[in-house]
Amino acid sequence: MQPSPWWQAPTQAPSQDALAAATQRQSQLTKPAGALGELEQIALQLASLQGRECPTLQRPWISIFAADHGIAAAGVSAYPQAVTAQMVANFAHGGAAICVLARQIGAAFEVVDVGVLSSTAALPEVVQAKVAPGTANLLEAPAMTEDQCLAALAVGQAAVARALAHGADIFIGGEMGIGNTSSASALATIFLNTEVVQLVGPGTGLDAAGVIRKASLLSQALQLHAARCHTPLGALTTLGGFEIAALCGAYIAAAQAGLPVLVDGLISSVAALAACRLHAGVRDWLIFGHQSAEPAHVRVLAELDARPLLQLGMRLGEGSGAASAYPLLQLACALHGQMATFASAGVSTRDA
Amino acid sequence: MQPSPWWQAPTQAPSQDALAAATQRQSQLTKPAGALGELEQIALQLASLQGRECPTLQRPWISIFAADHGIAAAGVSAYPQAVTAQMVANFAHGGAAICVLARQIGAAFEVVDVGVLSSTAALPEVVQAKVAPGTANLLEAPAMTEDQCLAALAVGQAAVARALAHGADIFIGGEMGIGNTSSASALATIFLNTEVVQLVGPGTGLDAAGVIRKASLLSQALQLHAARCHTPLGALTTLGGFEIAALCGAYIAAAQAGLPVLVDGLISSVAALAACRLHAGVRDWLIFGHQSAEPAHVRVLAELDARPLLQLGMRLGEGSGAASAYPLLQLACALHGQMATFASAGVSTRDA
Repeated sequence: MQPSPWWQAPTQAPSQDALAAATQRQSQLTKPAGALGELEQIALQLASLQGRECPTLQRPWISIFAADHGIAAAGVSAYPQAVTAQMVANFAHGGAAICVLARQIGAAFEVVDVGVLSSTAALPEVVQAKVAPGTANLLEAPAMTEDQCLAALAVGQAAVARALAHGADIFIGGEMGIGNTSSASALATIFLNTEVVQLVGPGTGLDAAGVIRKASLLSQALQLHAARCHTPLGALTTLGGFEIAALCGAYIAAAQAGLPVLVDGLISSVAALAACRLHAGVRDWLIFGHQSAEPAHVRVLAELDARPLLQLGMRLGEGSGAASAYPLLQLACALHGQMATFASAGVSTRDA
Repeated sequence: MQPSPWWQAPTQAPSQDALAAATQRQSQLTKPAGALGELEQIALQLASLQGRECPTLQRPWISIFAADHGIAAAGVSAYPQAVTAQMVANFAHGGAAICVLARQIGAAFEVVDVGVLSSTAALPEVVQAKVAPGTANLLEAPAMTEDQCLAALAVGQAAVARALAHGADIFIGGEMGIGNTSSASALATIFLNTEVVQLVGPGTGLDAAGVIRKASLLSQALQLHAARCHTPLGALTTLGGFEIAALCGAYIAAAQAGLPVLVDGLISSVAALAACRLHAGVRDWLIFGHQSAEPAHVRVLAELDARPLLQLGMRLGEGSGAASAYPLLQLACALHGQMATFASAGVSTRDA
């Protein structure tokens, strides 16, 4: 009998005692009950995850996983495949949106090559963890072998280990991969048990004809691979990108370590859904940063019972929506921890 | 012939040249066009308001205007009227939500007594600018005289002068006044030319019966005062609170000085609508921070053609929603100013 794989090991349980203490504290703060809306819910969730009445966030960590997709050869993106590697260089040199956001929020930042087509070894800032130079074209074959999928999951696990070693108190995962909305849409189609045409969107900028073509191609691929997609690991192996599997592994490892996760947009949310299907205990550790403009995202979020903090029409990936939401988490913690109580401030309660 | 009042003097014009330069810059940044959603629009708006291609925000200013409302005697709030003064003390001592937020975002902060029922003179931190100890009960008489309304407008103007002297680069107004959702709902009813029952909400926590009673009382008041509400100044004088008029004056003064404004929730948005009715040039200078849970807010925002950055279910006032949105403005500026261009980063453009 084989030992259970690492990703089946137990996740941490949020603290019900801390949640109760934080709820009690919140009821005493000088504001009408509920008047801070979702900022109150975030403070309570973080209290339960950190196991203390007054949570704090000080050391955010961002890992960007980059990989190429065989399906890009079919022209499912408005951008050429070389952009994946070019953007990895842009990440390494600090010029991408997520780099700016990381500096602004004071986050530690790394970019991980989990499967870029060309070599990124000349960029010393890039973590070298290439499983393969891009996935297979899922129009013709499974995107990965199961060993490759397990290797990509482990790349995410290793990123969380680095975050923990750094003392991170929240994990943001991001991704870069030309063609990855195709992979994510195919995976979401399986996980939501729906039709791919319901989920396909413009990605980084396809026109209407391009969207229709993308849906048609993905529909063919899903027919080709139907028999391989009956388990979460089978679907992830067959349809997933390396960066999606790495995010999935990172989310599982974070939940096992008790490290809260701030989830980004469509690609990351599909990875989160895959992680929850592989291990239901992951869901407790996920906070959702923003709702993407990609049409599939609303449905994936609903499946996760998730209500993101931001709806800003962003559709960039890279972890940019999650990083943009991070300041709200800090504000939620500060409000929860620093506001006066009715008693300490001498303020009358309602109907007094 | 009397000279024109100060609030009719011209507002500044946003820079079309800076907007064009910023738009050109944004098209070159390493992301698909539009992928940063509303963060891109905010950067462009701030560029036009600051008159430069790359806007920055470093010195936010928060003025909280506090005043009492005669209508509170009719029991339109879940909280006793004494809470206005108690919360002024809480502001002065740093325990209120907006105080925590001001510290977190590095904002200068002041609280202005523009009409609190009891004296706040024992609190040295409070700016003394009391027009009168509360408005009249608008169920029985106009809330203010016209001279009082003009005085309250000038209190807002003076706050903006202090902000400018401090070197502020954005103005956040907030308010505190038990009963002020009643005043704001009545004003919005006039400005939107609708029925008050369409707009009345729970304020800080009325139950359903309380909401119905509040709507009935306000309907009576609007019938009583219909003839006085045909001009914006007449409506503001008859129905407004001192803090609403002060916010209105502040927004006009900010637009005249070329100081961008970040608008808070329902009360502030009604003040902003009043300001735009008094002087259409104000609208250009308004950025909307959040959409409140108060039902009237959606309609007031629609009338202002405003799309707030946040929808977090907040309904506290105090400027708390605006202050919570401020970090997003900073992120928008940083992204716009610091991201690499396709050319500088060697990244291919779409369809290349």
